[in-house]
Amino acid sequence: MEKGEVWHVAGGVTAPKGFLAAGVSCGIKRKGNRDLALVFSQLPAIAHAVFTTNQIKAAPVLVSREHVLKGKTQAVVINSGNANSCTGELGIKNAKEAAKVAGEALKIPPQSVLVGSTGIIGVPLPMDKVAQGIKLASKVLSKESGEEAAEAIMTTDSFSKETAVSFQVDGKEVTVGGMAKGSGMIAPKMATMLAVITTDAVIEKKALTQAFDKAVGQSFNMITVDGNTSTNDSVFILANGQAKSAEIKPPSSSYKLFVKALSHVMGELAELIVKDGEGASKFIEIEVKGAKSFADAKDVALKVANANLVKCAFFGEDPNWGRIIAAIGMSAAKIDPAKIDIYFGNELIVKGGMGFVYCAQTVGEILGGKEIKVIIDLNLGKEQATVWTTDLTYDYVRLNAEYKT
Amino acid sequence: MEKGEVWHVAGGVTAPKGFLAAGVSCGIKRKGNRDLALVFSQLPAIAHAVFTTNQIKAAPVLVSREHVLKGKTQAVVINSGNANSCTGELGIKNAKEAAKVAGEALKIPPQSVLVGSTGIIGVPLPMDKVAQGIKLASKVLSKESGEEAAEAIMTTDSFSKETAVSFQVDGKEVTVGGMAKGSGMIAPKMATMLAVITTDAVIEKKALTQAFDKAVGQSFNMITVDGNTSTNDSVFILANGQAKSAEIKPPSSSYKLFVKALSHVMGELAELIVKDGEGASKFIEIEVKGAKSFADAKDVALKVANANLVKCAFFGEDPNWGRIIAAIGMSAAKIDPAKIDIYFGNELIVKGGMGFVYCAQTVGEILGGKEIKVIIDLNLGKEQATVWTTDLTYDYVRLNAEYKT
Repeated sequence: MEKGEVWHVAGGVTAPKGFLAAGVSCGIKRKGNRDLALVFSQLPAIAHAVFTTNQIKAAPVLVSREHVLKGKTQAVVINSGNANSCTGELGIKNAKEAAKVAGEALKIPPQSVLVGSTGIIGVPLPMDKVAQGIKLASKVLSKESGEEAAEAIMTTDSFSKETAVSFQVDGKEVTVGGMAKGSGMIAPKMATMLAVITTDAVIEKKALTQAFDKAVGQSFNMITVDGNTSTNDSVFILANGQAKSAEIKPPSSSYKLFVKALSHVMGELAELIVKDGEGASKFIEIEVKGAKSFADAKDVALKVANANLVKCAFFGEDPNWGRIIAAIGMSAAKIDPAKIDIYFGNELIVKGGMGFVYCAQTVGEILGGKEIKVIIDLNLGKEQATVWTTDLTYDYVRLNAEYKT
Repeated sequence: MEKGEVWHVAGGVTAPKGFLAAGVSCGIKRKGNRDLALVFSQLPAIAHAVFTTNQIKAAPVLVSREHVLKGKTQAVVINSGNANSCTGELGIKNAKEAAKVAGEALKIPPQSVLVGSTGIIGVPLPMDKVAQGIKLASKVLSKESGEEAAEAIMTTDSFSKETAVSFQVDGKEVTVGGMAKGSGMIAPKMATMLAVITTDAVIEKKALTQAFDKAVGQSFNMITVDGNTSTNDSVFILANGQAKSAEIKPPSSSYKLFVKALSHVMGELAELIVKDGEGASKFIEIEVKGAKSFADAKDVALKVANANLVKCAFFGEDPNWGRIIAAIGMSAAKIDPAKIDIYFGNELIVKGGMGFVYCAQTVGEILGGKEIKVIIDLNLGKEQATVWTTDLTYDYVRLNAEYKT
């Protein structure tokens, strides 16, 4: 990104002022891989979070949901390798214990600690290991360890995911950073999408919540690998005010810049999650425009993105628009079959709901690429939505079938 | 089936009295395979039909929907190899022309002919071939050609699907027969589930409709391969009264027997469709019980049946209950996570939402079988629903990705 209104800076969760992190190995994962991440704000931060819509919520989700409502937040502890999900009363006790151990180690109240877990479902958290890991992590917190924290939350991710951007408010630099792990329910019994966003912005909780919900709606809620939500999905944000700028309030231009920065960080993390998706060979962007409402556009885009037959056709690099049309028709959105246009890249494939004569070579080149853009124009209104997804491959089936519990 | 209240008889759509059929080759499919089916009732029949819920409906669906409302029906014409879908005005004209040609050949009004198509989307129907096929079929109609008709509606089905049962009403034998083709949107650009049910029952339209809708709800609406509806799905029923028994009226015992017979025929055809599903290696029955409502039970069963991660785990023969729990949680049904029990066959795997110690060898044998039963007890109410589905295999991806249009 060029240095403009919002520009990239190095790092992830520790890029904003006043944040430290650590990523250590506490022995949940085999081979001594990092499996415990700690993100710490040197001063209490305003916090907000969104959690999985799945009716079955893991223990850390239930505990963090409580803690985030109890005033300021100063730390996030996440372990990988064990989801602490479907673990009953003991699971709740363990999630609370993790917050307590972190609180003691960091000399902050336990309710100012948020917890997250990702990994095997249905196995009790090995609390001795987790407690040791938290204590160790609290001793090695540093500005330089953002990437190690991002690594420690990985499950079957093939690379760690972090990014950060800055912008100016009255001459002061304000930074938003983040880390995430993906993608869909990648691994056997693994659960799933987690992200931590940090910022030194000076902002009140209400404005933070509003900006955050908007940015989540345009990023993490617009990606799908297999349409499956997990029991553990969580996105946390901490804002500690250390940029010491004027307060960011809607509907000011600084608020708009903040939303832009947040959307950028979350959008980039969301894109990385999809690109690292389960056995994916292609990154597919589905833009639905000309819809009567955003909800309609999103519904159509998700129906197409989640249709196995469409995903298989992209894997096979076949311009199979019949499957796309059928997937569009499965949505509850307002559509007129005779008005639908479909493009692969810039090539018109379907016009007015019927096949259009296209250049096979050009379309072959588009479908042969690693990144494919599909545009669906409903020609009914002015709203649009873009969803990112992957193809459905032999490797998806292999990853999800060959594993033995 | 033993000869009891309802018993199996030979044949399919021509098993009931007064029905003839033909299955011929008219040259839409390559290699001279049968591709045009005609089912004919010697006397005008009461008819009813249900069509795809997909918002994008193929021309034959639109035309048959009109015809079925216009009094009695005497014939059903179905071609395979071309879906006559996304074909605009010309498609409607062609579907009407097919009914007209059949009407002329059979000396019946065109609106007493229902039409169906299955095959490639977006390509105009080759009307000269279809017209020739209809004329030929009308000349070779016979009692013995039910199986040939069932063969003529196949697309990538690996076997033809037909069945029939009889029962008694006041000492007279009443028969219900049927044929179907499957399954999900199996083949590239192919569309999809079609069935014709015939009966010589003496029944009024209202009672027929009521019985039919109930049986469809328990059979064709309870199967899923990939959760994708097509633009062409249709189920037709014709009742010609040739059994000459007393009229079948609800809520009599003969009406209950009729519903039982219908459900049996449709259930068997539905099961055959799933067993012949896209690259499937296993047939999976998911029974959800203890639900507050039938809708809740069905929602949970379908969420589990359509979850790619669950389907991959069955392909891999892995007892991955974490994925099943997560899929249950994605439903909108009333659930209590702490009350959910899950069984593979008779083996309890999950009790009260947590893993239960099971015999690995027994479960391994169950998952190693070709047919697997999963029971999910929500322990909240008395309603239940059973859905049939397949696993997700390399062959599914291969079938749906390797094909080139």
